[in-house]
Amino acid sequence: MPPIVTLTTDFGLREYFVGAVKGVILSVHPEANIVDISHEIPPHDIQEAAFTIQAVYRSFPHGTVHLVVVDPGVGSARRPIAVTTEQHHFVGPDNGVFSWVYRSEPQHKVFSIQADHYFRKPVSHTFHGRDIFAPVAAWISRGTELSRLGPRITDYVKLSVGEPSPAGENRVRGIVLHTDRFGNLITNLSPSDMPGKPVRFEIAGFTVASIVQCYSEAKDALPFALLGSAGFFEISMRESSAAARLAVERGAEVVAVWDGPVGRVR
Amino acid sequence: MPPIVTLTTDFGLREYFVGAVKGVILSVHPEANIVDISHEIPPHDIQEAAFTIQAVYRSFPHGTVHLVVVDPGVGSARRPIAVTTEQHHFVGPDNGVFSWVYRSEPQHKVFSIQADHYFRKPVSHTFHGRDIFAPVAAWISRGTELSRLGPRITDYVKLSVGEPSPAGENRVRGIVLHTDRFGNLITNLSPSDMPGKPVRFEIAGFTVASIVQCYSEAKDALPFALLGSAGFFEISMRESSAAARLAVERGAEVVAVWDGPVGRVR
Amino acid sequence: MPPIVTLTTDFGLREYFVGAVKGVILSVHPEANIVDISHEIPPHDIQEAAFTIQAVYRSFPHGTVHLVVVDPGVGSARRPIAVTTEQHHFVGPDNGVFSWVYRSEPQHKVFSIQADHYFRKPVSHTFHGRDIFAPVAAWISRGTELSRLGPRITDYVKLSVGEPSPAGENRVRGIVLHTDRFGNLITNLSPSDMPGKPVRFEIAGFTVASIVQCYSEAKDALPFALLGSAGFFEISMRESSAAARLAVERGAEVVAVWDGPVGRVR
Repeated sequence: MPPIVTLTTDFGLREYFVGAVKGVILSVHPEANIVDISHEIPPHDIQEAAFTIQAVYRSFPHGTVHLVVVDPGVGSARRPIAVTTEQHHFVGPDNGVFSWVYRSEPQHKVFSIQADHYFRKPVSHTFHGRDIFAPVAAWISRGTELSRLGPRITDYVKLSVGEPSPAGENRVRGIVLHTDRFGNLITNLSPSDMPGKPVRFEIAGFTVASIVQCYSEAKDALPFALLGSAGFFEISMRESSAAARLAVERGAEVVAVWDGPVGRVR
Repeated sequence: MPPIVTLTTDFGLREYFVGAVKGVILSVHPEANIVDISHEIPPHDIQEAAFTIQAVYRSFPHGTVHLVVVDPGVGSARRPIAVTTEQHHFVGPDNGVFSWVYRSEPQHKVFSIQADHYFRKPVSHTFHGRDIFAPVAAWISRGTELSRLGPRITDYVKLSVGEPSPAGENRVRGIVLHTDRFGNLITNLSPSDMPGKPVRFEIAGFTVASIVQCYSEAKDALPFALLGSAGFFEISMRESSAAARLAVERGAEVVAVWDGPVGRVR
Repeated sequence: MPPIVTLTTDFGLREYFVGAVKGVILSVHPEANIVDISHEIPPHDIQEAAFTIQAVYRSFPHGTVHLVVVDPGVGSARRPIAVTTEQHHFVGPDNGVFSWVYRSEPQHKVFSIQADHYFRKPVSHTFHGRDIFAPVAAWISRGTELSRLGPRITDYVKLSVGEPSPAGENRVRGIVLHTDRFGNLITNLSPSDMPGKPVRFEIAGFTVASIVQCYSEAKDALPFALLGSAGFFEISMRESSAAARLAVERGAEVVAVWDGPVGRVR
C-alpha cells in the first residue's frame, strides 16, 4: 500500500511553495502518494488549520502522515514536532495546530524534531515547510520511527479548542468554530453534548427553531440548523450566507436547547 | 495500469471536503490514481459541471472513473447513479450532470446506486460526496461491475444541453454554453452543424466577421471567432473579455452564417 | 522510481484545461507521477512563469520533466521546445519561459520539437498544452531521447532576467523580480552579488536598514530585508504588504549597500 502524505498549508496556489514541498518529499521518498487537503488556509490562521486537519484526518487510511504548515513563527525558537496516535502521524510547528488531535486522541505522543540529518540542507530561515517538515514527513512515510527524530515532550502548545459548557437546564453553550465558503456557521456542538434532540439554537440574538436533516429540506428563507458532515451542528441559510445575514463571525457564542419537561427550558 | 479516478466538484479548495473524498477513495483502493479536474465549479451549477466533464473525459484512458459531485439535492430523494459507456465510467447524483455524456455516447447504461454495503458508514445527510460517491467510485476503479450497485434505470434526469437549430438558409442558431475565465464565449456550434465554412457569427446585436485559427492571429480590438479546443466555435477578444465587452452571458443566442450562393444568405 | 512530470501553467483551476493535460499525459504514460507547481500564473505572464520554474525545479529529483505552458503565441509560428540540463528536462513554448534555466545551467541543450508522431491528433490551434506539450512531456518521462523530437537549436528566445550591475563602491543595483501573495518584494540580489554583508537596501526612495533572518524577528512596523527561500534578498513588512505600502511593482530598481571602510559608501 503506497504511503500517503497529506498537505495542509497557508501557502496559496499561486507561488512555487507547494511544488517545492512536493519535490522534496518525492526526493526522499519517490513512492509517497501526496494528497492535498488545502493550501488556502488563511495566512497564519492556526485555528483554521487545526479545524481543517481534525475534520479530515480520520477519512484517511491508517499509517497516513499529515503535514500541516501554518507557521507564523518560522525561523524563531518555536519547535518542529511530530505527533503519533499510532493510526496517524502528524508533522508541523509546535504552535497548537494539532490541538484538536490532542483532544480527540488521548493516546497521542509528541516528539521534538531535532535530528537535523533528516533535514534538507542548507535550512533556510523562512521556509521550514520545504527544508524541515517535508523531508521529515517523507522519512516517516518511509517508516522512520518518531523516537529517532528527537525526545518525547509533554510541554507542547495546546490552544483552547472551545469546549462546550452547561448554560442552564437543557441548555449547552458553544461557539462558532468555522465559517465555510457557503457562509455556513459550524459550531463546536455535537449530539454527544446534549442528552435530547435539539429544538432550537440561539445565536446573535436570533432563535433558530428549524432543525432539518439536509440543506434541500429547508423550505423558506429563515436560518435553520442541521448536523453537518464533520459531526457538529451548523447554522445555515438557503442560498445565502448565514454568516453575512446574521452578522456572525468565528468565535461567536451559540446556545443549543434540547427537549425536556415542559416549563423547564428557560 | 493504475486505475484513474477523476474529480469534478463545486467544493472549492479552501475547505477539507476534497481531502475527505480523496481519503475515502484511497481507503477503499490504495492504488487509485486520483486526478483533479476542477473543484471550482460555481456552487450548485449543474450545467457548468455537465459542460466541464464532457469537455475533458475523452482525454483520459479507457477505464477511467469520473466522479462528479455538484449536488444541490444532497440528502433528498434524488438518486445516486453510475453510468458506463464501456470506455468510461461516471458516478454522481441523478440531476442531469451527465446529460452531455448521454448525448455523446448512445451506448451508455445508467444504474441506480442502492447497494449500501459499498457506502461509508454512517452516511451523513449533507456529504454524499464522501460517504456514497467516493467509495462507490473507488469500488468501480477496483473492478466492481456497475450492475452490482443496483438496477439499471431509464428514467434518469436529462437536461437540455442546447441543440443547434436551423435559422434560415445557410444559418444555424445556437447558444453560449460557457464563459471561460478569459471571457471567451464558448458556443454549442461545431463544424458538423454547418456544411460550409462559417463567414460570420451574430450575437447580441453584433456581427463577428473575423474568423481566425488562433488567438494570436487576431490583429485588432474587434471580436473574432475561432474553433476552440473543445470542438466548438467561440467568440473572443484580444486581451479583453468578450463576455464583458459584448455584455453576453451563458445561454445567449448566437447564429452562425456560412458560405453559400450569393443572395441566399439573409 | 516513478518518473515525475511537473506542471506550471496560467490555465487557472476553474476550467477543464489542467484535467485535459493530465489525461493526455496518463494516456501516454500511465505510470507518470504528475505534480502541480502552479496553475495560477497570471495569464500570459512569461516572466512570472520563468521565475516560478527556476525557484522550484532544483527541489525535484533528477530525471524530472517540467512542463511549462504560458503561451500567448499558441498556434502562431513560435516553436515548441524541449530543454535538457541532463538532471532536469523542460518542455514548453520558445518564448523565453526557460530563460532562468539557460542562465543557471550552462550545460543546457535546446531542441525544436518537430516530430509530430508524438502529438495528440488532431492538433488544435488553441490548446498545444494538451495536444503537443503534454504528450511530448509524457514521452520524455518514458525515456524518449530529446534528440528524437527534432533538431538541436541555438537561436531560442532568451529574455533578460535582470542581471545585477555595479552601482558605485560597495553598492550593487538590482530589480524586484516578483511580488508574492503576501506582498513581499523578491529581488534578484543574492549574497554572491556582494562581497560583504548587506547593511541596507534602497528602494523607491526608502532606505531599509533592518536586516533580519526570519519574518518573526522583525519587531516593528518598518520595512525590513531578509534572505528568502529562493536564495534572493527580499523586502518585507510585518503583517502588511511591502508592495502596497511602498507602492513598488515588479521591475522596480533596488540597490544593496554592504559593509565597507568608513566614508567610502556613497
